[in-house]
Formats: sequence, C-alpha cells, structure tokens
Amino acid sequence: MQRYFIDNRYSESSPVIITGEDYHHIVRVMRMKEDDHIYVVFPDQSSAAARIETISSDSVEAVVVEWETDTKELPVKVAIASGLPKGDKLELIFQKGTELGADQFIPFTADRSIVKWDEKKAKKKLDRWEKIVKEAAEQSHRNVVPSVSSPVSFKELLTLSKHFDHTLVAYEEEARTGEKSNLSRTLGSIKDGESILVVFGPEGGLTENEVGRCRQEGFLICGLGPRILRTETAPLYVLSAMSYQLELMR
Amino acid sequence: MQRYFIDNRYSESSPVIITGEDYHHIVRVMRMKEDDHIYVVFPDQSSAAARIETISSDSVEAVVVEWETDTKELPVKVAIASGLPKGDKLELIFQKGTELGADQFIPFTADRSIVKWDEKKAKKKLDRWEKIVKEAAEQSHRNVVPSVSSPVSFKELLTLSKHFDHTLVAYEEEARTGEKSNLSRTLGSIKDGESILVVFGPEGGLTENEVGRCRQEGFLICGLGPRILRTETAPLYVLSAMSYQLELMR
Repeated sequence: MQRYFIDNRYSESSPVIITGEDYHHIVRVMRMKEDDHIYVVFPDQSSAAARIETISSDSVEAVVVEWETDTKELPVKVAIASGLPKGDKLELIFQKGTELGADQFIPFTADRSIVKWDEKKAKKKLDRWEKIVKEAAEQSHRNVVPSVSSPVSFKELLTLSKHFDHTLVAYEEEARTGEKSNLSRTLGSIKDGESILVVFGPEGGLTENEVGRCRQEGFLICGLGPRILRTETAPLYVLSAMSYQLELMR
Repeated sequence: MQRYFIDNRYSESSPVIITGEDYHHIVRVMRMKEDDHIYVVFPDQSSAAARIETISSDSVEAVVVEWETDTKELPVKVAIASGLPKGDKLELIFQKGTELGADQFIPFTADRSIVKWDEKKAKKKLDRWEKIVKEAAEQSHRNVVPSVSSPVSFKELLTLSKHFDHTLVAYEEEARTGEKSNLSRTLGSIKDGESILVVFGPEGGLTENEVGRCRQEGFLICGLGPRILRTETAPLYVLSAMSYQLELMR
C-alpha cells in the first residue's frame, strides 16, 4: 500500500488533504479511486492507514482509518557521512541508506574526492537528492524522511561531529590489520535514542591525515571485515549491521 | 593493488603467466611495468603478492613474492536465490553480493517475475553476469569467484535447496507480523564450513503459495526488520548481517 508524507499536522476535525506531487501520484500514476486506501505519515512521525473520501481536480481528501502502532525507525539516529564519490554512487547510498534506516546524510569533500561540487548546479542536485530520499522513505514504509545536506568541508564535518554521541570512521587499512571489534563494541553499548556518525571515504579511501584528525577528535576507527568494500557498499553494510544488532538480535 | 584470478595452478618451477583479458588490463588499462606488483589468486584459492618480471606482446610473467595468509572468505558458504527482478537489479545484487562475500547466485523465475528469460540472449547475459562477478571478486580482494547460474524454475530451486545445511526465505509479510529471530538464531548456530541458501522474492515479493512450499521443504521464514527493503537491497542486508555476526562479532 502506497505511503505519503503529509505536510500538515493531523486534525481530528478535518480530513487529510493531499495536493501537488502526491496528488498527481495518487490520481495519475496509481490511478486510485474513492474508497481506496493509502498510508499517511504526519510531521510528528505518527502514521495511519487512510481511506480516500473525495478526489477533486487538484486535491485528494482522506480520512484516517487506523493508526499504525509498530516502530519503523531504528532505535538510534544514524548519520552517514560520505566522501564525495564519482557518478551516481551518492544516489545509491541515499536510496538504499534510507531503506536501511539512516536518519541523515552528510556528503563531504574528501582529500581524494575527484568530483568538484558545482555551486551553480547545487540547488538542482539537492532537490534531486531530497526527492530520492523521500521516495525511498515512502517505499520502505518509514515514518521519517532522512535529511540530506549540501557537501560540507572536512573541517565542517569535524565540527558537526561534536553533536553526536558516538563517532566512527570506516577505514579499510584498519580492516587489513585485522581490526574487527570497534563496530560491534559500539553497537553493543549504544543506547536507544543516542546518535552516531559514521564517516566513509570516497573511491581510494580516506587519507592517513584525515583518519588521524578523526582519531584526534575521538572517533573510533573500524574495519568492516576482510573484503574491500566499495565506497557505496560500506554504508549499507554498517546500516544493515545496525539493524541486525539493534532490531533483529533483541 | 590489483588482483587477478589465474587459471593455472601454481608451480614453483615456473613463473605465473597471464594472458587474454587480464593481460590487456595489466598492460593497457593499468599501464603496469616490469617490477610493478599485483595480487594473484590460484584455482586452489591460495593467493600471493607477485612481481611482474617480463611483459611480452601477449603475456605477462610474474613471480610470487609473498603468500597471503589472512582469510578473505566468509566462514560459511552463502547462496543467494533471487526471484528474477526487472532491469539491472540483478547486476547490482551480483556486484554488491560478491563484495559482501556470497559464494553462489541462483536467479529463479518467481510467480511475480515480470521479466521473461530470453533463451536466445541467455549466453550473452550469463557471460556478462560472470564478468561482473569476477571483477567484483578482484576488486574486493576475494579468493573465490562466486558462481552464477542461468535462471532456474521455482521447482528446480526447491530441488537444489536439499543440498544446503540451512535454508531461509526472506518474506516481508513475516517482518510485518514482527518475526525477527529466525535470521539471528540461524546465524548464531551455523557452523564454519556449513552452507546456507537464502531465497528472496522479485518486486512484489513471493506469493503465499511459494512461501508455503518453502515452508513444507523445511525453510525458515525470516523477517529483515520493520522497514520494507527492495528486492535488490534485501540480499545485501542478509550478507552484511552474516559478515557482522560471523566475522566482526567473533
């Protein structure tokens, strides 16, 4: 059943009104009719099954039928910081990372990032990223649309890192030396509601200098097993491990 | 450092000889010279750093410098069976699944598979899949190139399943009802060297009938957490969870 994020808060006294792109999607793409059902998610993250009551020329009105009570969100808030990679790899990270429960995406310009961030195209690119994330959140039945920011500098990333309860760097050189306990130790001790930032390099990885500066800021350096993961695969590994440890193993 | 799978067994008395596509890659793509280093992996899964000794017009000769002793492979053999999805999703599963340690890929025609398998294009498609898997195995520094088969029928899949020590089906309806212990219970009890088959539906999922038949054959039905994962994301979740449990948590 299709899921839509509603901009307005729920009110008992009036129907849920859907306009704009979601209206278009319900009426033109899904070709839904009155009495069909959808899921609606409100800004306070509450969600419900709703029945379409009326379809007019520019809006759909629906009424809540049954509130959802199960939790769709990871018990911790995970931010994924990716060194700007080439091509559309970032889009894959955003789409799959949203399905896997990330709360926030922070691209950053790493020493080995080859792509230059084009400020002229920034607005368009950010719009596209936000659309990918919103659609993935709807599709995966989440109650939160993760936030995506424009790329920050490495220095800005270190400043942002101070707001997190836990900070990790995925570093393949560390995996080569057999480091394998920092991720599981962190996930074993993290408490519900805490926040965690995980930093990933671009193709070619982070430089020793970048890793050293993270270490100074108190980041834990973690390996992700003996195989070398691509820059877009590593975040998916970490998010899957988090879900496995914090949702399935409990 | 680049990694190449060698067709011939290692012999102490002669150099490692590389021809064909790998020759082309070393000389034309990577533009390597004599005395440059590569990794070589032999059919018995032993691997070593090797130094290029001579480059001729159609072959590279290299000598083993140092054998690798660390384990790159998951301690269990994982087969991923995917209901034929649309587009290039299968290629994403093969590439990322190889990075994440899968041993075997078995596509199958599921009730809800929309794509028809074109026997005329079968050879070309399988060649392409095998290339994707080989390159991903090289890139991720594995010692095994996973096998990929042409799509089998669901009935054939059930027959194949008898060869595995453990069999699981990922089923989103089961996740909705809160099933969350079968994956972690299986990974908690699986022994090194054992084999496991995990079956995933195409877009739209497996039908109740398919899941019922799996259940009759002794498959465990498992949920993968509260969010709905796309058909190409679910196998990556399971492989990541396996690596996390069997490689990082030990």
